[in-house]
Amino acid sequence: MATIKDIANRLGVSVSTVSKGLNGASDISEQLRQSVLDTAVEMGYTPKQMRAREAKKLCIFIENMEYETSEQFGYDIILGFKQAAYPAHYGVTVIPVTPAFQAGEKYDTYMLKNGYAGAFFVGFALQDAWLAQLHTTSIPTTLFDNYIRKNPNVSYIGTDSFEGIDDAIEHLISLGHRKIALLNGSAHSMITEQRRQAYIESMNAHGLEINEKCMPYGYYVAAAAKDHVANLLSLGATAIVCGNDLLASGALEECRANGFRVPEDISIIGFDDIPISAKLTPPLTTIRQDRIELGKCGFYTLHSVINHVSICKNLLRPQLIIRDSTAPVRNNGCPAP
Amino acid sequence: MATIKDIANRLGVSVSTVSKGLNGASDISEQLRQSVLDTAVEMGYTPKQMRAREAKKLCIFIENMEYETSEQFGYDIILGFKQAAYPAHYGVTVIPVTPAFQAGEKYDTYMLKNGYAGAFFVGFALQDAWLAQLHTTSIPTTLFDNYIRKNPNVSYIGTDSFEGIDDAIEHLISLGHRKIALLNGSAHSMITEQRRQAYIESMNAHGLEINEKCMPYGYYVAAAAKDHVANLLSLGATAIVCGNDLLASGALEECRANGFRVPEDISIIGFDDIPISAKLTPPLTTIRQDRIELGKCGFYTLHSVINHVSICKNLLRPQLIIRDSTAPVRNNGCPAP
Repeated sequence: MATIKDIANRLGVSVSTVSKGLNGASDISEQLRQSVLDTAVEMGYTPKQMRAREAKKLCIFIENMEYETSEQFGYDIILGFKQAAYPAHYGVTVIPVTPAFQAGEKYDTYMLKNGYAGAFFVGFALQDAWLAQLHTTSIPTTLFDNYIRKNPNVSYIGTDSFEGIDDAIEHLISLGHRKIALLNGSAHSMITEQRRQAYIESMNAHGLEINEKCMPYGYYVAAAAKDHVANLLSLGATAIVCGNDLLASGALEECRANGFRVPEDISIIGFDDIPISAKLTPPLTTIRQDRIELGKCGFYTLHSVINHVSICKNLLRPQLIIRDSTAPVRNNGCPAP
Repeated sequence: MATIKDIANRLGVSVSTVSKGLNGASDISEQLRQSVLDTAVEMGYTPKQMRAREAKKLCIFIENMEYETSEQFGYDIILGFKQAAYPAHYGVTVIPVTPAFQAGEKYDTYMLKNGYAGAFFVGFALQDAWLAQLHTTSIPTTLFDNYIRKNPNVSYIGTDSFEGIDDAIEHLISLGHRKIALLNGSAHSMITEQRRQAYIESMNAHGLEINEKCMPYGYYVAAAAKDHVANLLSLGATAIVCGNDLLASGALEECRANGFRVPEDISIIGFDDIPISAKLTPPLTTIRQDRIELGKCGFYTLHSVINHVSICKNLLRPQLIIRDSTAPVRNNGCPAP
């Protein structure tokens, strides 16, 4: 376990400063105190009084998502949740789950048996047994990117797709683009439908023509770009907004394979800002979901539900990260390959 | 100022129980502790250690809304905000504002000069000077039923119109209604447009026919019902969902004036569940916005923004309150008056 000295070394401050930060002393700045707390959580430091208070226990169930190292999508979500839970004196346990695990015991039973006051679900799939049980659960529960109707004990958090897609389209319009396609993710997903609706609303709001052929469904993997990019290029798209960064990375490859340079001939935008996005060639312009904030939002929302404030949806602001995969349009039609 | 004894009397418990609740002792239940805290806030009791901590100051700006007595819409919103702020050691000041007040000083200047860490806006109108300034403010700010695009320091809270309208329509369908009209509130309001969209989505989802004439815009006052109800009746509507409870109260009168009995000939549903709703003749079935929860949600959301979690929208679950203004449909067409 990390010591106070480890935290001091990481932050480049004295041991007494760390101690002040952990004990809520008033003679250090609020910002420094927060850094001390955040670093303590990240390094796994737990002071005695915190351990004594760990009667209030929460858990994070995680599935279909890597989270062990800081390069992986789930890492910062879990870290953010813990950072927000810590000053509120909640202990947090991370529990990876599988369909078999869910089949072994009912969700409510598991929670009551283990004394958890509430749970945060990350990465679950629609067909998961525990998701179906959430329609009637009495356990305070918060879901990342999954929405359960009408149960006041369950809330949904995520990033607002409408602002994100609109930010992307406004950015492309400012560069002169008009023929903007949406290479979407998997059909039958709530998030996919949100982004499709957001695209339609934004294109309409900006008076741009919508062509049903320019908004295909794909899958949330790089390989899915292969099935659609050549067609979007032949339809004259000068920019493609993608359902996530993996799809966008596939789109970069497909454009090259079809003889189109990014961003000279065509602009590409991703969604998520996963760690690889900045390292692609060219570095990807993308709509960021801040994963630390998502984790913190998960805690704050779950805390609200535990306090009988029945949050339905709590959505974060996205942030457009402009890198090198977008540039002014070169012409307004279909550039010859 | 209220004393510990006053709180004990109100709750019917001993002074020592109140004392334990205020001091976070572990030998009373969490539920009782919460009641003690909530009552202390409601009665204006502030213990010494709380007063010492009041460096963290928030304010609630309120306009166009009554809040002095418990029958008024704003009262519970403010109470809920204070109840959630109290255990987090925030002091809360309520400041009624006018256009003149806003013209006197810029919002950011006012906040900095007075040392407020953030503000909750209730009841503002679109043309308010301070609302326009929120596009660029750096002050953590949360708005009830107003939405500012793209500023990460500003968040919007409210009740999810989509679930609310859908609950109402599902209830009417379960009573056999098919010709369901929407008597909406004022045009050019975000909430009005949300409810219109929610109505369209819900009617479509249930395979019911939508007639543009059956979804008129009115105003959020009882008198506006006069302009539309006779027409909706003549179009054969057997149920009318109203934009708020005031409109619904006007609709009750208009139905009677046109010789239609509620609920025998036509069903009426309101929105909000303001205190008068239960006292109307007949008592009104309505979509409740829980005002205590709205206030608490306002605090939790503002607290998130202060902690650099940029909430865009935080929406509560509505709750359908079934009273006597809805009943099984009598026939499926236009009942003769």
